[in-house]
Amino acid sequence: MVKRIIYLIIGFCSLHFSSFAQESDSVIIRRIYSIALSEGKAYGWLDTLCHSIGGRLSGSPEAAKAVKWAEKTMINAGAENVFLQEVMVPHWVRGEKEKAEIISTNKSAVEVTVCALGGSIGTNGLPLNAEVIEIKNFDEMKQLGKEKIQGKFVFFNRPMDPTMVNTFEAYGGAVEQRWAAALRAAPYGAIGTITRSMTPDIDDYPHTGSMAYNDTIKKIPAVAISTLGAEKLSAMLKQNPSLTFKLTLSCKALPDTLSHNVIGEITGSKNPEKIILVGGHLDSWDNGDGAHDDGAGVVQSMEVINIFKQLGITTRHTIRAVAFMNEENGVRGGKKYAELAKENGEQHIAAIESDAGGFTPRGFFMEGDSVKKEKIKSWKKLFEPYNVHSWNHEGSGADIHPLKEQGAFLLGLSPDSQRYFDIHHTPNDLFKHVSRRELELGAATMAALIYLIDKYGL
Amino acid sequence: MVKRIIYLIIGFCSLHFSSFAQESDSVIIRRIYSIALSEGKAYGWLDTLCHSIGGRLSGSPEAAKAVKWAEKTMINAGAENVFLQEVMVPHWVRGEKEKAEIISTNKSAVEVTVCALGGSIGTNGLPLNAEVIEIKNFDEMKQLGKEKIQGKFVFFNRPMDPTMVNTFEAYGGAVEQRWAAALRAAPYGAIGTITRSMTPDIDDYPHTGSMAYNDTIKKIPAVAISTLGAEKLSAMLKQNPSLTFKLTLSCKALPDTLSHNVIGEITGSKNPEKIILVGGHLDSWDNGDGAHDDGAGVVQSMEVINIFKQLGITTRHTIRAVAFMNEENGVRGGKKYAELAKENGEQHIAAIESDAGGFTPRGFFMEGDSVKKEKIKSWKKLFEPYNVHSWNHEGSGADIHPLKEQGAFLLGLSPDSQRYFDIHHTPNDLFKHVSRRELELGAATMAALIYLIDKYGL
Repeated sequence: MVKRIIYLIIGFCSLHFSSFAQESDSVIIRRIYSIALSEGKAYGWLDTLCHSIGGRLSGSPEAAKAVKWAEKTMINAGAENVFLQEVMVPHWVRGEKEKAEIISTNKSAVEVTVCALGGSIGTNGLPLNAEVIEIKNFDEMKQLGKEKIQGKFVFFNRPMDPTMVNTFEAYGGAVEQRWAAALRAAPYGAIGTITRSMTPDIDDYPHTGSMAYNDTIKKIPAVAISTLGAEKLSAMLKQNPSLTFKLTLSCKALPDTLSHNVIGEITGSKNPEKIILVGGHLDSWDNGDGAHDDGAGVVQSMEVINIFKQLGITTRHTIRAVAFMNEENGVRGGKKYAELAKENGEQHIAAIESDAGGFTPRGFFMEGDSVKKEKIKSWKKLFEPYNVHSWNHEGSGADIHPLKEQGAFLLGLSPDSQRYFDIHHTPNDLFKHVSRRELELGAATMAALIYLIDKYGL
Repeated sequence: MVKRIIYLIIGFCSLHFSSFAQESDSVIIRRIYSIALSEGKAYGWLDTLCHSIGGRLSGSPEAAKAVKWAEKTMINAGAENVFLQEVMVPHWVRGEKEKAEIISTNKSAVEVTVCALGGSIGTNGLPLNAEVIEIKNFDEMKQLGKEKIQGKFVFFNRPMDPTMVNTFEAYGGAVEQRWAAALRAAPYGAIGTITRSMTPDIDDYPHTGSMAYNDTIKKIPAVAISTLGAEKLSAMLKQNPSLTFKLTLSCKALPDTLSHNVIGEITGSKNPEKIILVGGHLDSWDNGDGAHDDGAGVVQSMEVINIFKQLGITTRHTIRAVAFMNEENGVRGGKKYAELAKENGEQHIAAIESDAGGFTPRGFFMEGDSVKKEKIKSWKKLFEPYNVHSWNHEGSGADIHPLKEQGAFLLGLSPDSQRYFDIHHTPNDLFKHVSRRELELGAATMAALIYLIDKYGL
């Protein structure tokens, strides 16, 4: 009985202590959100990045400009030890010609909106004209066999499942049609691939994105077609299976180019050797301004530094903001970062990436040790006033993933996913589609979590 | 001890029963969301409403067209007993002239973006030119007194607090400057009022909205100025307190006009006399297309009917979709609806309004009996897969509020609030700012809750 009473007292004290601690944490977190929402710099920075530089594919002159901009902006955010990490990146260019027409047997032509997938070979600027075979999944190619595919374009037309609430899951269920299109169709003698754009919407924006070749399979051109174009092509094929698709591309790969990750820090006051990383990727596709993907993540990460500095919060650990280069078509920046961290014996206790758009924050994806997950979830009450409620999804970010084998606990900011595939990898990924408040709330949410990880450890 | 075991068994059974029931509910709810996201009609309907009719202020020809459209669309949604309710509404027109200039003492003029508040008297199309006194709250007028206000425009320039996470709370903290501006300034001899637009953003859209006069206080013209204009005016006043504001308005009130609420139903199979209402308001301000406010709520309410019909769900109670007229400047439709419900002895067990924008749904506001609130909260697990997590805020909707005294339990769909005041009551409340998926999720969320209320009662 006495033992039980002691337990009760201990229980009471720790409850009391923890609720007191959370109260003072709640005050700090309130300050973090308030400063982000009233004096945040992220939105202005993103404006500059999108409007003065715009799309910034790895290896491009714009990507080089973005590196200089990020270095300067890190300093502007109040970061210490701002430095660059060299990394060789792919340099693929879209070129001037990018055109596709559906040619009916009576020779009439209907233009459809396409774009080359990133890394695709071109057609040397000359038209490539062939019949089209439409399929919904790779297994159908096996059934059709070489004789029905040989010499044709394979048209992968499986839509993203609109009924999935999380659009990233729907993306996951469809995107093999993009990245593996050429690899899977070439062995059947296909001369090119056409992939339905990765969006549950019907619109006229083609969605580019990465795709793969390898050394043993013949390289063939691979394009994305807008969903409107895909619907049109599919309908016309039903009427006339002998129509042809006439594709002209002048995209090509140039030699790899030197580029950089950009890094800035707040040096830890007690354990400077232990790092909490927050990052996004600086490169973007070339067709839009890379506003949501991932200008948002970059400016939010720099905003975390700015918030700590503005509020005068001293951190025990080193907080490091990283603008990674080349997430879109190689993740060379993320890999190089992890390689150098290992070489330099750096210790990352946690890494958070924001690379799911600058939309209203819902929670965090997490991957790693389950005890650490539970520790983080024990703080969730502190986030309720900010409508941050989602803590149960697995995941993090492509750039920080290489740090996993070094024991870093990984997280990804999880914003509302409904609008992401309206703009993802399209000419429509523009600054005007970013909401100032949504962007700022995302930055504050990361800063608040980093504040807690820094204070209580992981 | 035996008693305790019986309790345990009862507890076990009811737990078992409830988890079984919730499992089958979860299947139905999954179907509701799936059909909304894959075959929903709300977005197409909203497209028509916004693009074929556009802004539809009470009493306008557009509002009359919208009534016809809503009647037809209710039938298209599968509603039974589609009918109109007559209601006399205010008929205020903006007129052609709406211009404001800041005139410096050297006579140079700077145009700023303003709009008349709804219901304001005009200046008969002639310029009204006077000095300006800037204040942040009504108390300042008491301190300044009549001698410093007499003959001037009072400029209410208190911003919405950007640090509030829920933008509706920030709106609540600022909006008295709009609806009570003329009423409060006229007794001090002001000749007009200028209210800083209700948005935490800095942009060049003036936000209109309702304002009040009464019979005992002199009517003076009242306008909203864009936040950019407000910043400019404030800065110029600091430089030159003797500048004048030159306002020309041709707005005026015409005689009240006959209009209608539009109603459609699914007749209840067991308790047809008991009604569960879902609604939004059909009227909008004249300056935009009324896409979010509240075309969204109207099409979502009709979508609820469509979803039940498409899925073949038979309801015990009558489900009634209502497109209310005149929420924006009088709530005459809502008042008339409640009046007729009382006259006809109708019994509303619950009423849900969607009038906070067609953004991604977060939960429900509720007002009424706390036991009923708890019953609704007991279903919240069923909404977690859809990221609907917020059940603790008080509130409902202006149109359904008059039903409260008849015992209806009231709810409001609570979408994410971050973008609402980017567009609220502005020329920027356009269809292009509505996300199809966000709109559809809102409709499905209301349908799912109505399914549960219908099945388990309240």
